[in-house]
Amino acid sequence: MINEYYKEMTGKGSVIREFFTYANARAAEIGKENIVNFSLGNPSVPTPQEFTDYMKELLENEDPVALHGYSPTLGKDSTREAIAASLNRRFGMNYGKEHIFPTTGAAGAIAHAVRCVVKEGDEVITFAPYFPEYNPYIEGAGAVLKVVPADIETFQINFDAFLEMMNEKVAAVLINSPNNPSGIVYSTETITRLADILREKQEEYGHEIFLLTDEPYREIVFAGTDSPFVSKFYDNSICCYSFSKSLSLPGERIGYVAVNPKAKDAEYIVPMCGQISRFTGHNCPPSIIQLAVEKVLDITSDLSIYERNADKLYRELTRIGYHIVKPGGTFYMFPRALTDDANEFCWRAAKELNLIIVPSDSFRVPGHFRISYCVTEDVVEQSIPLFEKLYEMYS
Amino acid sequence: MINEYYKEMTGKGSVIREFFTYANARAAEIGKENIVNFSLGNPSVPTPQEFTDYMKELLENEDPVALHGYSPTLGKDSTREAIAASLNRRFGMNYGKEHIFPTTGAAGAIAHAVRCVVKEGDEVITFAPYFPEYNPYIEGAGAVLKVVPADIETFQINFDAFLEMMNEKVAAVLINSPNNPSGIVYSTETITRLADILREKQEEYGHEIFLLTDEPYREIVFAGTDSPFVSKFYDNSICCYSFSKSLSLPGERIGYVAVNPKAKDAEYIVPMCGQISRFTGHNCPPSIIQLAVEKVLDITSDLSIYERNADKLYRELTRIGYHIVKPGGTFYMFPRALTDDANEFCWRAAKELNLIIVPSDSFRVPGHFRISYCVTEDVVEQSIPLFEKLYEMYS
Repeated sequence: MINEYYKEMTGKGSVIREFFTYANARAAEIGKENIVNFSLGNPSVPTPQEFTDYMKELLENEDPVALHGYSPTLGKDSTREAIAASLNRRFGMNYGKEHIFPTTGAAGAIAHAVRCVVKEGDEVITFAPYFPEYNPYIEGAGAVLKVVPADIETFQINFDAFLEMMNEKVAAVLINSPNNPSGIVYSTETITRLADILREKQEEYGHEIFLLTDEPYREIVFAGTDSPFVSKFYDNSICCYSFSKSLSLPGERIGYVAVNPKAKDAEYIVPMCGQISRFTGHNCPPSIIQLAVEKVLDITSDLSIYERNADKLYRELTRIGYHIVKPGGTFYMFPRALTDDANEFCWRAAKELNLIIVPSDSFRVPGHFRISYCVTEDVVEQSIPLFEKLYEMYS
Repeated sequence: MINEYYKEMTGKGSVIREFFTYANARAAEIGKENIVNFSLGNPSVPTPQEFTDYMKELLENEDPVALHGYSPTLGKDSTREAIAASLNRRFGMNYGKEHIFPTTGAAGAIAHAVRCVVKEGDEVITFAPYFPEYNPYIEGAGAVLKVVPADIETFQINFDAFLEMMNEKVAAVLINSPNNPSGIVYSTETITRLADILREKQEEYGHEIFLLTDEPYREIVFAGTDSPFVSKFYDNSICCYSFSKSLSLPGERIGYVAVNPKAKDAEYIVPMCGQISRFTGHNCPPSIIQLAVEKVLDITSDLSIYERNADKLYRELTRIGYHIVKPGGTFYMFPRALTDDANEFCWRAAKELNLIIVPSDSFRVPGHFRISYCVTEDVVEQSIPLFEKLYEMYS
């Protein structure tokens, strides 16, 4: 008999996916150019030419048996060394290759990191607004995800609510900065305070509390934004990274776990990831992609359009009257909806204006909507009168 | 605190890996050419030129944003359609794209398929000799793996022992044919009998028993060997495939789940795989590899060397006096060791002759050893006098 738990789940589509599907169906009816689609977080700029060139070079010059051969269980040594060296150079860290585990994107990274530091029944705390896929990662590790309500004035951490939620069962805290969906980057002040609290609570509870940092947007930070490298502030930390956004490679599934060398039992964590892989059937990211990424660790796609889009949308939407906490990075912003029911608000925008934005509820914040502005500048331009009309509809 | 269960595991290396590591260390001392290394199952022939050419074509001609963009949750439609069409053409099946779920190799395929058809506490039966990685796949799904002892005369299924082991808790049976490590292919007679028993037991127990078929060696079958397509014999079946061996792409992590269209609840299983992915962080095989494989579904690497190596080793080793059940496919054979203690036997071959073969115990059969003959014909040639000496050492 098929497993009822997963079967039940197949009926429940994600709300974001519903809006995306609606957008595609509408585009088929009235033409793609008549839909302003802000629903998905797919990079809109190409991968650097260097990546493409190096892929072709590998295919032309390498022995195919070696090139496409099994990756070692813990990933390719040269890739692991190159990632460690790049992080050390850029952030003054002290990673060795033994702290780096290449993964199939941030999804693979978080799925492994969580399993390393929790046991059945433990709690993991995260902060709203948050990426809804955290639920299955945490649940799949046998732990329980607890969500701290958002501070909607700043989208920094709501420390009072966090302190209320802390208890002895908390084995890990998972943060996402720069943040999907708010676009906010946690400040040095926020990270310092978080680290201080975690150290204090470790002492109080007599066990480690790991800080897992989900950082796929680390390279998309706008001018003037304070963007600390979190692992510098707290020893028991594991960085979960993806190249999906920085190199525009979401489909190629490449990222890594970087274990803080100062973490308790740091030397065990990567070998444990290797063991966890055997249970999930993960078995390393693709060999050729590991090798190709090695050569482009210190560069990114041309990400400047995201900042231009952010500036324009923020300027125009606040001019119209929307309330927005100004994003410091990513390609998202998270304005307040003009009514309490974000779901109704977004469906109205979709159905009456062909403007596709997604409601905030699945990020566990009511009354907001997410704009994914990984789109061309023309689309941003096209959206402004629509946002204007939407505002009028609620005035 | 880090998870003790996975931590404990990091201490325990696999025996195969121990021999492989020893071979590398010895090679560094005395030269690679002086070691005959039959330890690992890494394909030794290149991927077809068509694969390489098509990869380059994609990199040159496709829009990189689309090429490297997110794959849909259930895999690329064109890839799923092409896989279904190829299977239908070759095996007279009736798959639609809705029955195909692209995965990161057979590991990903089995990890998903098992989770679809078992619940906590169920039993899954497999047959010795078997691939030791089945343990974590099954355990990770919350089920218990039961192993039917081998019929060492034929390495077909030991049906008496199987029938004794069957009970109401059995939710799935997992077979691997052509088999690692024996090289044996289950005959039409074997598969027919297995299917008959499973149908009978389904009736008796009042629930489905799924047959999971692990088929990475499906395309490596030697002349004259009866090699039935298992899913034709039993409706509640899920085929788990990998291109690792047929296209020599083990590092690129590409395979699939193919759900028998006649299986109970067939329409749910692929969407369930999509849900399971969210828990394991799997998120589809790399986009570019999905696309490239589409074009080479009906061809393989030149696999003929495996059959030539099999013929030569079988002929020479049986001439010397070894007892071997003749392999019908793969690049493995599984002769009897010349003493009951296969581990001691293999270490002696390694240490006294620099001949690296691996003991049978971790495949759950005592007193045998595995030869992985995915090597050049020269290495096979070089091994014959060593096998001769090894035989003399035990005469």
